[in-house]
Amino acid sequence: MSEQPGVNGVVAVEGQAPAEVAEKKRRPRRPRLPRLRKTSSPGAVPGIDLDQLAKMPSAPGSVFVTCIDYGPDRVAAQDVHDVASFVADHRPDWASIRWINVDGLTNMEVVRSFAAKYHLHPLAIEDLLHVTHRPKVEAYHADAGYQARLFIIVRMLELQAGHLRSEQISIFLGHKTVLTFQESPGDVWGGIRQRIQTAGSRLRTNDASFLVYSLIDAIVDHCFPLLEHYGDRLEEVEASVLQQATPAVIQEIHELKRELLLFRRAVWPMREVISTLQREQHDCLSDATRTYMRDVYDHAVQIIDIIETYREIAIGLTETYMTVMSTRLNEVMKFLTIVGTIFIPLTFIAGVYGMNFHNFPEIGWRWGYGFFWVVCLATSGGMVWWFRRKGWL
Amino acid sequence: MSEQPGVNGVVAVEGQAPAEVAEKKRRPRRPRLPRLRKTSSPGAVPGIDLDQLAKMPSAPGSVFVTCIDYGPDRVAAQDVHDVASFVADHRPDWASIRWINVDGLTNMEVVRSFAAKYHLHPLAIEDLLHVTHRPKVEAYHADAGYQARLFIIVRMLELQAGHLRSEQISIFLGHKTVLTFQESPGDVWGGIRQRIQTAGSRLRTNDASFLVYSLIDAIVDHCFPLLEHYGDRLEEVEASVLQQATPAVIQEIHELKRELLLFRRAVWPMREVISTLQREQHDCLSDATRTYMRDVYDHAVQIIDIIETYREIAIGLTETYMTVMSTRLNEVMKFLTIVGTIFIPLTFIAGVYGMNFHNFPEIGWRWGYGFFWVVCLATSGGMVWWFRRKGWL
Amino acid sequence: MSEQPGVNGVVAVEGQAPAEVAEKKRRPRRPRLPRLRKTSSPGAVPGIDLDQLAKMPSAPGSVFVTCIDYGPDRVAAQDVHDVASFVADHRPDWASIRWINVDGLTNMEVVRSFAAKYHLHPLAIEDLLHVTHRPKVEAYHADAGYQARLFIIVRMLELQAGHLRSEQISIFLGHKTVLTFQESPGDVWGGIRQRIQTAGSRLRTNDASFLVYSLIDAIVDHCFPLLEHYGDRLEEVEASVLQQATPAVIQEIHELKRELLLFRRAVWPMREVISTLQREQHDCLSDATRTYMRDVYDHAVQIIDIIETYREIAIGLTETYMTVMSTRLNEVMKFLTIVGTIFIPLTFIAGVYGMNFHNFPEIGWRWGYGFFWVVCLATSGGMVWWFRRKGWL
Amino acid sequence: MSEQPGVNGVVAVEGQAPAEVAEKKRRPRRPRLPRLRKTSSPGAVPGIDLDQLAKMPSAPGSVFVTCIDYGPDRVAAQDVHDVASFVADHRPDWASIRWINVDGLTNMEVVRSFAAKYHLHPLAIEDLLHVTHRPKVEAYHADAGYQARLFIIVRMLELQAGHLRSEQISIFLGHKTVLTFQESPGDVWGGIRQRIQTAGSRLRTNDASFLVYSLIDAIVDHCFPLLEHYGDRLEEVEASVLQQATPAVIQEIHELKRELLLFRRAVWPMREVISTLQREQHDCLSDATRTYMRDVYDHAVQIIDIIETYREIAIGLTETYMTVMSTRLNEVMKFLTIVGTIFIPLTFIAGVYGMNFHNFPEIGWRWGYGFFWVVCLATSGGMVWWFRRKGWL
Amino acid sequence: MSEQPGVNGVVAVEGQAPAEVAEKKRRPRRPRLPRLRKTSSPGAVPGIDLDQLAKMPSAPGSVFVTCIDYGPDRVAAQDVHDVASFVADHRPDWASIRWINVDGLTNMEVVRSFAAKYHLHPLAIEDLLHVTHRPKVEAYHADAGYQARLFIIVRMLELQAGHLRSEQISIFLGHKTVLTFQESPGDVWGGIRQRIQTAGSRLRTNDASFLVYSLIDAIVDHCFPLLEHYGDRLEEVEASVLQQATPAVIQEIHELKRELLLFRRAVWPMREVISTLQREQHDCLSDATRTYMRDVYDHAVQIIDIIETYREIAIGLTETYMTVMSTRLNEVMKFLTIVGTIFIPLTFIAGVYGMNFHNFPEIGWRWGYGFFWVVCLATSGGMVWWFRRKGWL
Repeated sequence: MSEQPGVNGVVAVEGQAPAEVAEKKRRPRRPRLPRLRKTSSPGAVPGIDLDQLAKMPSAPGSVFVTCIDYGPDRVAAQDVHDVASFVADHRPDWASIRWINVDGLTNMEVVRSFAAKYHLHPLAIEDLLHVTHRPKVEAYHADAGYQARLFIIVRMLELQAGHLRSEQISIFLGHKTVLTFQESPGDVWGGIRQRIQTAGSRLRTNDASFLVYSLIDAIVDHCFPLLEHYGDRLEEVEASVLQQATPAVIQEIHELKRELLLFRRAVWPMREVISTLQREQHDCLSDATRTYMRDVYDHAVQIIDIIETYREIAIGLTETYMTVMSTRLNEVMKFLTIVGTIFIPLTFIAGVYGMNFHNFPEIGWRWGYGFFWVVCLATSGGMVWWFRRKGWL
Repeated sequence: MSEQPGVNGVVAVEGQAPAEVAEKKRRPRRPRLPRLRKTSSPGAVPGIDLDQLAKMPSAPGSVFVTCIDYGPDRVAAQDVHDVASFVADHRPDWASIRWINVDGLTNMEVVRSFAAKYHLHPLAIEDLLHVTHRPKVEAYHADAGYQARLFIIVRMLELQAGHLRSEQISIFLGHKTVLTFQESPGDVWGGIRQRIQTAGSRLRTNDASFLVYSLIDAIVDHCFPLLEHYGDRLEEVEASVLQQATPAVIQEIHELKRELLLFRRAVWPMREVISTLQREQHDCLSDATRTYMRDVYDHAVQIIDIIETYREIAIGLTETYMTVMSTRLNEVMKFLTIVGTIFIPLTFIAGVYGMNFHNFPEIGWRWGYGFFWVVCLATSGGMVWWFRRKGWL
Repeated sequence: MSEQPGVNGVVAVEGQAPAEVAEKKRRPRRPRLPRLRKTSSPGAVPGIDLDQLAKMPSAPGSVFVTCIDYGPDRVAAQDVHDVASFVADHRPDWASIRWINVDGLTNMEVVRSFAAKYHLHPLAIEDLLHVTHRPKVEAYHADAGYQARLFIIVRMLELQAGHLRSEQISIFLGHKTVLTFQESPGDVWGGIRQRIQTAGSRLRTNDASFLVYSLIDAIVDHCFPLLEHYGDRLEEVEASVLQQATPAVIQEIHELKRELLLFRRAVWPMREVISTLQREQHDCLSDATRTYMRDVYDHAVQIIDIIETYREIAIGLTETYMTVMSTRLNEVMKFLTIVGTIFIPLTFIAGVYGMNFHNFPEIGWRWGYGFFWVVCLATSGGMVWWFRRKGWL
Repeated sequence: MSEQPGVNGVVAVEGQAPAEVAEKKRRPRRPRLPRLRKTSSPGAVPGIDLDQLAKMPSAPGSVFVTCIDYGPDRVAAQDVHDVASFVADHRPDWASIRWINVDGLTNMEVVRSFAAKYHLHPLAIEDLLHVTHRPKVEAYHADAGYQARLFIIVRMLELQAGHLRSEQISIFLGHKTVLTFQESPGDVWGGIRQRIQTAGSRLRTNDASFLVYSLIDAIVDHCFPLLEHYGDRLEEVEASVLQQATPAVIQEIHELKRELLLFRRAVWPMREVISTLQREQHDCLSDATRTYMRDVYDHAVQIIDIIETYREIAIGLTETYMTVMSTRLNEVMKFLTIVGTIFIPLTFIAGVYGMNFHNFPEIGWRWGYGFFWVVCLATSGGMVWWFRRKGWL
Repeated sequence: MSEQPGVNGVVAVEGQAPAEVAEKKRRPRRPRLPRLRKTSSPGAVPGIDLDQLAKMPSAPGSVFVTCIDYGPDRVAAQDVHDVASFVADHRPDWASIRWINVDGLTNMEVVRSFAAKYHLHPLAIEDLLHVTHRPKVEAYHADAGYQARLFIIVRMLELQAGHLRSEQISIFLGHKTVLTFQESPGDVWGGIRQRIQTAGSRLRTNDASFLVYSLIDAIVDHCFPLLEHYGDRLEEVEASVLQQATPAVIQEIHELKRELLLFRRAVWPMREVISTLQREQHDCLSDATRTYMRDVYDHAVQIIDIIETYREIAIGLTETYMTVMSTRLNEVMKFLTIVGTIFIPLTFIAGVYGMNFHNFPEIGWRWGYGFFWVVCLATSGGMVWWFRRKGWL
């Protein structure tokens, strides 16, 4: 969450603290709760226009820009090193779609170049730079100064050291251009790049919005291993509660409920984004894409559905755990009570005959000792019979 | 869940693991939690078109195809062994409806033949092949290349070794053709086949959508024994909690809540499917069918209603169980306290007169021993009186 | 729940098992949970047409048919013994409304006669015969072969041996005819029959739908004694929890929550039925009736509202009970702890001086015994002071 | 809840039993739960028309009728003693609004006179006479026989002996006339009467619906002291739970939750009434009044909002109380365990050396007694160390 | 919450008692629960018109009025000391927007001057004066006597001594004028004033509604430190529950749940206000502002979302705490039981051999003492083995 000085109106949602921050913390196991933080003074106007962007200093860290031009017949991929000259050129005529992918948001000049070339809206630029936004979709219709664009923010979820972590992906969709910005290199789109290379694949024959659909589909599908992970943990905890129930289980249940809560919180707005893309009309979205979008929507709904199921089971587990605990306590207490109530009177009787009264008739009796044992056996026998009748034994 | 290599974009919802998988598991009693699993790499485009289908290898396992042609006057049933030649032929003129049923999805060539003949949409083919889909209905309206179809996925629920198991049924409804695909042989449609044979039955005089209605009706009605099963288990657990309440009951309540959750999760989308069929206009759905659909809808609503009632009772049972437990603990503790507090002071007194002080006046008293018993009786009598006043006895 | 062989597509909702079935059960106090049961094999087509009806065997048991014809000026009531000839006749001209009431559904011929005469829809006939349906209203608009009818199913709730029991009432409303079918003789409509006899009463001057309104009103009002019953039980349990709280109370709370759940489940769809009648336009419903229907709707809403209030209080009672229990346990434990911790050290000290060491200086001291008591009093006094400071005394 | 014989179709909602009934009860502290009771036999037709009204006997108890005529320039208030002659007269020409207020519903002749003069609907008359109705608003549009009227029922809530009690207020709003009926003398409208006397006040210059608005506003504002009361009680209980937590607190929390439930149940329909008045068009409602109605609506929403907040806190308190209790139990148990486990072994050791074996070497040792104390101190010291390590001390 | 005598219809929502009131209270740590209080008698008509305002006495306390006129080219800020002469003047021609800010509501003459000049509605004046209103937005459309205005109430939340406190901000938006009223000096708009001074900033080039947007944005952003605060407290409590769990934690959890409830209650209506501004058409709201309003709306939604997440975690924490407690109790009880049940029989045996029976064979045995130890070791060894088998050790 590198903070650029000079950037105004920055809202940062924490909660998915990157690994290096988490390491410094004194409670390493728990991911932090989400916050909202304003890095600039209140009163600053949101949105970053080109002039502001030009003045913003770049952070260290390299930025990788790749561009793939493709059409039904040809495809050409290039690594862009000189953004300025790249931006000056145009898409070749044979290419029906140009996909530019920017890995890393540290170089402001790169961002400014694309923002200027593709007329990005100041609010969108700000959202793009502040990498902790809630997933959303915003339609910028053709307007004085700005071209029609769909601006989509999604979050790529992944597991890091067993905990949820998310990276913001910003997608600009134009008529023939798709611009994607990622926080850091490394993504889940290898399969898509490969398919673009395959002649005759559906990606090649469809339009730019189909590419965006494919990108989102890959991101949503990437939630499946997370479900797998939480499902496994839940089943383990469940077995543990019902079988041995060590005290550490409480903590595990608590963590699980908490992470499922954060997971749901992350996926829920993604469902809304996809639903919007599927429902709303926009110049840049073809009907075919919308039909395919139903499929991703189905997946998102299923993911949320399963998270909810997990949560209900996890909540039920707490209750079950408490019930297991109180049942055990009961059993333990019953045992103590039985042993105690059997021996306490006997100990008293033994104490009686240990007294040193000079005038103590029973002591001198011949069968006194035998009589003592008879009383003891009768007492404890009576107790056992009575416990049995009460159903405690 | 046989995985076909080469199939891309496969989403599998587990949770109803087939028996042979369940057997290998170390916790055999509990059905697994639902997951979503992607069998192909992310980035693959969903939907399977005919070319891809042709390239997909078939799995071992036999496939049974049956075809029933019927009209008001005649009916003819046949087992199809040579799919290729069957597909080349047409429905006889006297037959107003053709119902083709495919049992088993292992032979890709069979699927391809019907997909080609009936112009099935690539997304539908994919959903059909991946047998763990959520129930849904999708209308493919007449379009370039594809004919108007209703594509319906429902799940047939059944009990297997006391646990929920479901099989996916995919139904394609055309104007005069009904195509059904089942995961494995064996279904609940015997009664329907018999009725088609009966001249003058309403099935014979109605259209293809009425057949689909009857198929869904049979599947929904098949949930009734499940309700029966869970209702019985719930009543047993209820009696057990209120009467003897062994610790094993906790586990049973937990299992029950969990399975009812999975049950509801399975029936809920079916209700939506039926509601859609009843509400929405589609070329292939007749008005008469929609009137009858109200009836199935009523049943689905009643099933969900009853599952909810069961769940509320099961949730209430956990509370009741805890209350029963804490009441018992109370009773046990009260008993221990009474016995303890009566005898502990007495034991102390007996201990006192067991001391060996040389200068110990009471020891030498004539009525010392009698006096000891008087003190003991008075103390314990006072205790009993006090307990009674406190309402503990 | 007599099962007619040959009837197909029968759905039976249990849960209000008739008295004779309940008697056979091993847990006589608890009404059974609701089920859904299919008496015929799946695949049978729902709806019973006249031909099927003709073939269905009649069960033993007598059927009473009464008919009241009335208009503003005249009224005539008759017991119908020969249904066939009755059906052949028509309503007299002076009568603006004919109300035919059938008590008992065992004689199929009677049902067939009315079904034929009044063109009842096959689905309605089936619902009518299977006496465990959820309340609903279905509008059959004028259609080829069938006349415009409103078909209404309501359930008459009553207490039987302190438990909910319900009887299905099926009502067919035509323009000038009202047909009611009851499961068994005995109803709550005595007041209505009397009012029809009274010249100038609003029933006499209004149309057929007003009669139906009055019938439903009487049934809804019949829920009031049930509320009374559960309100009384709830107040008793409440007093019991807060005052003496015997363990039997848990069971009573559980039963109460369960029955209120079933009660709500029974009334809820009735509210929907009335709401539909009040809102929807239908040829057979006059505007005046709809105005009056608001009144019944108000009552139904109030009943549900009160059931919900009862349930919330009952749920709160479980918590209160647990709290009461844990408070008592606390008190008991505190007492035990105090008695125990005061006497345990004293007993130890007494034990010490009961030891038989030969070289045991204190034993021989002159004031040894007095010193022992001083130590005891100081120890226990210190304990009491400390407990008081901790707030345990 | 005086019951008029001869009144038919009477629905009475109890729950706010008047003081004299409450006094007879054996559990005086708790207000009764709401019921619905039908005082006539089922089957009676609701609504009371003028003829029925004329036949109904009057109950004892005096009725006060006051009338205020006012316009922008003049105002005249009178106590009406002879209703018959009053009804025969008309509103003076200078008066733009006439407000007639009837305190007491015992004299049927008074009710009949106004019902006849102002053409009140039979259903409205019945609701008016049965003083336990749920708040509602009903629009009677101009119709054959009846004039356009708004009929509003609201409930005036007040505290009586620390418990909720409510009185029904029925308001009829015509174009230039407002008729209000109260159960008993004494109201919250003193301020309004005073303002009507003030020349130039907004009441004087607005229409009849503005008067109704003012009446409702006064009634809603009257709920504020109730909130105050429950807020105070809740804060006291809260402090008590967190500071000393006597067992009586459980009962208090239970009562509070119960009364807040009944409070919410009473205010909720009032919100609906005001919302309806604010939203719906009606001849008798001016636009200006609707603007002002927003203000009362805001208040009603705030009241419900605060009741909900109170309820959530009260529900949370039960949990907190249980947690406090179990924490204390824990502390007590830990103490008992520590004292017990330290002294129980010591007592055993003391018991050992109190045995009378003839051949008992340690007894004769020179340092036996000193050795005994060393063992005791070592044992208890080890225990204390171990408890400290476990974190129990 | 200074109360102005003579002000009528005053509704005050407490719950954020200012510091000086809080200091007097006996429970200083907890913020009070919200109430609604009417300072005037019921029946008073709400809304304050100019005449009433003129008669209202001013409270002591100084009022600061500042005015900023700005346009794209020029800006001029002034402190207004003589309100009367300021109001007589007009906005200079070069200024496209005039923003007047009033700090302090004690001087009624100031309020009256602006109310007269800008034709404020009586209801709005009342709301403005009573500084404890729920956030809301009201559109006064151009009307006889009043100009089109948007009247917005928002609440500025801040932490005071660790607790929530809020100040009411009333905003009037006209076509070219923005009027803001604050309860007390000191605000969060320093950044905005600075930006107005900056030539070419977006504030300078946009219209009046953009200024209002910026004001609200600054207020919403001011909630972020509150989230930070509660997030930190929650994480601390969480760590404490899972690690050491002192009894004080219960109180802390309770406070936290309570404050989050009040926090949510404060932010929720703000979201509605912003949503209304974003959705509804109004003359004074430009389309550009509505686009920017989406951004604030996003923030408000995120704040509520995070509060809900916190609350769910806090609620889960209570359960976890109880579970932790009962687990510990279990552990403690098990320990007590083990020590008790091992030593109680041994103590009994030691007591037996301490008896003084004359005829006591074992006493005289040679190996009696050794035999005693053998019995003791055997007994306790058996116990330990048995506990191990039961899984208690």
